[in-house]
Amino acid sequence: LPRINFQQQLVALKDKLLAMAALSQQALEFSVEAYLAGDMALCDHVVEIEAAINSAETSVDDLRFILSVIKINSDLERIGDQATNIARRAQSLKDAPRISLPVDIKDMGEKVGVMIRTAIQALLEADAKLAESVLAMDDEIDDMNRAVQTELIEVMQQHSLFSEQALNAILISRNLERAADHATNIAEDVIFWVRGSDVRHKLSLDGVD
Amino acid sequence: LPRINFQQQLVALKDKLLAMAALSQQALEFSVEAYLAGDMALCDHVVEIEAAINSAETSVDDLRFILSVIKINSDLERIGDQATNIARRAQSLKDAPRISLPVDIKDMGEKVGVMIRTAIQALLEADAKLAESVLAMDDEIDDMNRAVQTELIEVMQQHSLFSEQALNAILISRNLERAADHATNIAEDVIFWVRGSDVRHKLSLDGVD
Repeated sequence: LPRINFQQQLVALKDKLLAMAALSQQALEFSVEAYLAGDMALCDHVVEIEAAINSAETSVDDLRFILSVIKINSDLERIGDQATNIARRAQSLKDAPRISLPVDIKDMGEKVGVMIRTAIQALLEADAKLAESVLAMDDEIDDMNRAVQTELIEVMQQHSLFSEQALNAILISRNLERAADHATNIAEDVIFWVRGSDVRHKLSLDGVD
Repeated sequence: LPRINFQQQLVALKDKLLAMAALSQQALEFSVEAYLAGDMALCDHVVEIEAAINSAETSVDDLRFILSVIKINSDLERIGDQATNIARRAQSLKDAPRISLPVDIKDMGEKVGVMIRTAIQALLEADAKLAESVLAMDDEIDDMNRAVQTELIEVMQQHSLFSEQALNAILISRNLERAADHATNIAEDVIFWVRGSDVRHKLSLDGVD
């Protein structure tokens, strides 16, 4: 089953609710009419309408989508928090001499930026494969962060004059690693949303559901 | 504060999420750039972006709206169930002689239809006053249902030949009363969604929030 995208999912959700509202009202009014007139064909029609209502009802898929949106929202907000932490650390270094450290924060920052962009694109396009690529990138960021910690603890030990700069780089590397975790959470939510129903359909084909 | 309607709320929710995604990504990339360049103005800008993210974040209002949609969905489905119950009772009377009973199921059915339509209109227009009118109509349906029960139990006692027809009318009246309860639930959800934020804003003005 092809998965509809983010925009389509929201529109579908609204259309479903309005269709259900029209059907429920119709079913009720027809049922009374059928009773009053003793109209058996109209009774059958009410039962048909009810089946249509049940199949239009907000499904587990819809709820999974809504839940994902709420969680993604919160992860985006936390990425903003990490960015602010980095900016505050940069501010605290205002008067410290600028030195060159043996770590590539620029590369790490760019990679985390790509992770966020890719996770959002995967959400918009309901692309679980694209979301999976974000998970692979997170492993890389974790490795980079570990390398930064090792390198800079050594710098701090050997060049205590630069310990303020080294400590800030360590903490910024950690902020980036956390921002990457939030991008990963978003990607996981996209996979949960997109793949969840596949799993369910598979179970249903196996006769378990 | 004027309340935006159902359609606008869904669109706003989607736009908010995409705006947050763009801002979060930008904040993170700028923060690293600001650190690397020691750019204090860019640091300030990151802090500004984070404030924008926080104010765009899915609010309590948005969550209240989403919750309402899920609950309304379930009430519509249950109205469909009640309609089916009525149709099934009409079917069970297929071979029973049709008699005239001293109750107005037609009027009751029409009133419940109006309640459902009004509740949905209140949802679409985010109109709490209109939703309140549904609550008043529910009291009327409760009274009508009680009157039906009293009248028809008497019929059953005095004309046992018509007890099948009277019993079905009693049960259909109860089905209508339950459908009316679901329309009332929908109206209450609309009021919760629309008024909830008013209460919050009022608290905020009083300095409590």
